[in-house]
Amino acid sequence: MNAEGVPSGLSGREQILAAAAELFSESGFSGTSTRAIAEKVGIRQQSLYYHFAGKDEILAELLSGSVRPSIDFVESIEARVPGDVSPAGALFALASIDAGTLRATPHNIGTLYLLPELQDDRYEQFRRQRVQLRRIYGRLGSAAAHPDVASSLGESRLGAVLLQLAETVIQLRRDDEDTSGHDDDTIAASCLRVLGLGGAEVETARAEAAAVLAGLAAD
Amino acid sequence: MNAEGVPSGLSGREQILAAAAELFSESGFSGTSTRAIAEKVGIRQQSLYYHFAGKDEILAELLSGSVRPSIDFVESIEARVPGDVSPAGALFALASIDAGTLRATPHNIGTLYLLPELQDDRYEQFRRQRVQLRRIYGRLGSAAAHPDVASSLGESRLGAVLLQLAETVIQLRRDDEDTSGHDDDTIAASCLRVLGLGGAEVETARAEAAAVLAGLAAD
Repeated sequence: MNAEGVPSGLSGREQILAAAAELFSESGFSGTSTRAIAEKVGIRQQSLYYHFAGKDEILAELLSGSVRPSIDFVESIEARVPGDVSPAGALFALASIDAGTLRATPHNIGTLYLLPELQDDRYEQFRRQRVQLRRIYGRLGSAAAHPDVASSLGESRLGAVLLQLAETVIQLRRDDEDTSGHDDDTIAASCLRVLGLGGAEVETARAEAAAVLAGLAAD
Repeated sequence: MNAEGVPSGLSGREQILAAAAELFSESGFSGTSTRAIAEKVGIRQQSLYYHFAGKDEILAELLSGSVRPSIDFVESIEARVPGDVSPAGALFALASIDAGTLRATPHNIGTLYLLPELQDDRYEQFRRQRVQLRRIYGRLGSAAAHPDVASSLGESRLGAVLLQLAETVIQLRRDDEDTSGHDDDTIAASCLRVLGLGGAEVETARAEAAAVLAGLAAD
């Protein structure tokens, strides 16, 4: 760590992202200037503009980074042999990746998801990614759910509920709770239970998810 | 509505709260001045200070208003004959009240729950109320849950997961979805399913919650 608390060993771009995340989460987005970010990294404001057009672009990059691993995962399993993974197994894996990503974001960047500023055009890519993620949750959830639950909630609401569950991690970190891989697992299991699946079905999905994730890691 | 879009028929205090909620959700908390709030209501800044010490106090009041009905509900059922309501029935009623309150908050004030500013001392009362609510969810959830779920998640995590589910409404409103009483019901049912309860148990809790809520309304 340098004097300002930004981990060393990161590229210039990563150092800027880490410093900005810390300032955004402490002082709010509108309360943070590019000058303050540059000072925290220990570089000139000019050097910051070499990497980013401004603080909006930094925020957009931080936000996209918090959903990209989940979207990449879905694309990689969809590229596999169809029928290879059940919807419940894929959903378990997706929710645990999502929870794990949100546990790892610098300074709990997910707390910025509800900022009014994010309605602005320049965050359209992030909003589109998040809608895409919600749709994937809805599709997998609808295919995996107990018929009564699927008909009562419908695909769109299921997507909202499942994404909301995965984001429990944001609230846990905000409440200063220690989180671990156990949380990724219990959150994924909660996603399946909300669909009306029982203990044995959750176990099967958990085992399937573990096999899928091990297979992807080996690819 | 007057020219600025604040519903008429509200007291001076309520008009200020409604105008502030709209400005906070559109321009952010730090981007809103007491002058702008007064202008929106069509009063002098001086008159605003007659009701509130500043915008912090307005935000604190809006936030407390979004959790108070749920806490009041729990206190009123706890005052009844012990054993009168099962934990699952009480949880169903609590989650549907919570979802209904969040559906009704002016301009989806729940989007401000994650603001960094809320870590400040002046919002301590709201933070305490929210911790209290989370503990109640944890206590009811832990008593109602399938034993496997209760031992895997524990009371504190159960509280976080259930509160998170109730707050799905904030995200639905943020995504411009129309919400209705049907959402309060499906969210409450989702809270029970996440505890590992089956369809018949959810039905029993739903009926019990309806009876409790009708009883309280008649008191």
